[in-house]
Amino acid sequence: MPDKLKLTILGRGSALPSKLANQSSQILGIHNKLMLIDCGEGTQIAIRQLDIALARLNHIFISHLHGDHILGLPGLLSTLGMLGRKGELNIYAHAGLEKYITQQTEFFGEDFGYPISFHPVDPFHTSTIYEDKAIKVTAFPLKHSIPSSGFIFEEKPKPLHLRKEKADQYGVPISQYLNIKNGMDYVTEEGVVVPNSELTLPADPSKKYVYCSDTAYNEKMLPLIENADCLYHEATFLSEHKLRAKETQHSTAAQAAEIARKAKVKQLIIGHISARYTDFSPLLDEAKAIFKNSQLAEEKKSYWF
Amino acid sequence: MPDKLKLTILGRGSALPSKLANQSSQILGIHNKLMLIDCGEGTQIAIRQLDIALARLNHIFISHLHGDHILGLPGLLSTLGMLGRKGELNIYAHAGLEKYITQQTEFFGEDFGYPISFHPVDPFHTSTIYEDKAIKVTAFPLKHSIPSSGFIFEEKPKPLHLRKEKADQYGVPISQYLNIKNGMDYVTEEGVVVPNSELTLPADPSKKYVYCSDTAYNEKMLPLIENADCLYHEATFLSEHKLRAKETQHSTAAQAAEIARKAKVKQLIIGHISARYTDFSPLLDEAKAIFKNSQLAEEKKSYWF
Repeated sequence: MPDKLKLTILGRGSALPSKLANQSSQILGIHNKLMLIDCGEGTQIAIRQLDIALARLNHIFISHLHGDHILGLPGLLSTLGMLGRKGELNIYAHAGLEKYITQQTEFFGEDFGYPISFHPVDPFHTSTIYEDKAIKVTAFPLKHSIPSSGFIFEEKPKPLHLRKEKADQYGVPISQYLNIKNGMDYVTEEGVVVPNSELTLPADPSKKYVYCSDTAYNEKMLPLIENADCLYHEATFLSEHKLRAKETQHSTAAQAAEIARKAKVKQLIIGHISARYTDFSPLLDEAKAIFKNSQLAEEKKSYWF
Repeated sequence: MPDKLKLTILGRGSALPSKLANQSSQILGIHNKLMLIDCGEGTQIAIRQLDIALARLNHIFISHLHGDHILGLPGLLSTLGMLGRKGELNIYAHAGLEKYITQQTEFFGEDFGYPISFHPVDPFHTSTIYEDKAIKVTAFPLKHSIPSSGFIFEEKPKPLHLRKEKADQYGVPISQYLNIKNGMDYVTEEGVVVPNSELTLPADPSKKYVYCSDTAYNEKMLPLIENADCLYHEATFLSEHKLRAKETQHSTAAQAAEIARKAKVKQLIIGHISARYTDFSPLLDEAKAIFKNSQLAEEKKSYWF
């Protein structure tokens, strides 16, 4: 499915793994790139079970430095080396992560066999942390017991669709197609201006995916995540445990849904569910009562949007 | 099943996890104790999926300090703390492991919430590393690219079975039962000696389990592992890759079986299979051709002996 983003959930649990859920990790497929978001223990196991093409994984984003979001990194980085990786791997995380990885290579007495670039993320300010021709990734502060960042993955505006029959009618040379797709008018040899709107149809919409975990309920993020095509928001607890959520700086399913509703996102996926629940459906019910287009993250399942 | 040892395989793979196999780990149930042997990434996930009673886990044995045998430790130790553990945990491993664990607690800025005792294992000599009234654990050198230890778990001689009808016939008081079960004769009030053999039946046999991974073919271990009730021996490669086995100081399935045959063990379980194989049955065929009572380690399956 080209032109769609593909989100694959590898782990939907919180710190304690359970029969129902592993530690946090997911992979976003965007413009033929794979972006790994968080890397709890077992991430590489899920990746290998799903036959995910690790050669296309060049960027890893870590929300915060709690074990359940990073314990899978040493094994994954080692596996990439064993699989013959030579190309650079980019890791976007709070500054402390580099030390964590360096301690691993020092302990085992060898590096991974390929270069790693650490890109320190400022946990206190919103900033662009990755950008290329087609996409942009923004980090923004969450509200957690330690510094924690959310991530916005968004496509830049896409080219307009050229109306081939109109281009032929006005004798537009192929050399001008790119300019026209980028919004320019066409001027014929006779000096007649053909407005761009005559030659094109609107571009495909640019997609936006937002990852918010771990975080307490935080309305400050609303302007940033507005109208996202998909929001993954942590929902560690049910509302009946909202005091516990507040103490541990996590969210309830109702709070995740409240954020989704207020931000007018198109769909919500809830995850990072506490191991205390042996049935996750009440969390989904709670979210749906507030925001209808809610889903429960399912491990090893992919979501397209 | 009392009186039997119970071995549960958590991971039967080598360094690269695959669809068929996770990194090394297994749990031995012996005299109501659980002994964890090696702890590759994902160990705690398997433990939680199998509902293994972590409260009974007080001893962890690590064969060597390669990542695929220890990467699961930080997560497991953290999980034990989250589950409320207060009692001491004992870890038997080569001396470097303590630094690995200390780096983790320092990085995350907190200990696990319970005491850990590190028991350094000498990788170059055979020595008793654990002993209580009923069992004994011995470490012995394997032959690998870094120092690596095998482990022998064995029951001490068990008490004789008292023949209750004979005890009654000779008027043995209950206070003497323990002495008789331990092999003493009984002397009646009249001074008549009733020989122990008249009062007892033989004790149950003491069981012996041996873990050998990672190792190249090594006949030096034979006297130690003789007559084991069960031998787990690594079989990373097929014989067609025996040069690769030699280079990397691993064994082929045929070599594992040769060790089992020469040591006259009762059964062999092969594991630590390379991810290069997508079908493990040829490894089992190779082992069986040399030692009939061979089995392929199956993850999440338990073996009783």
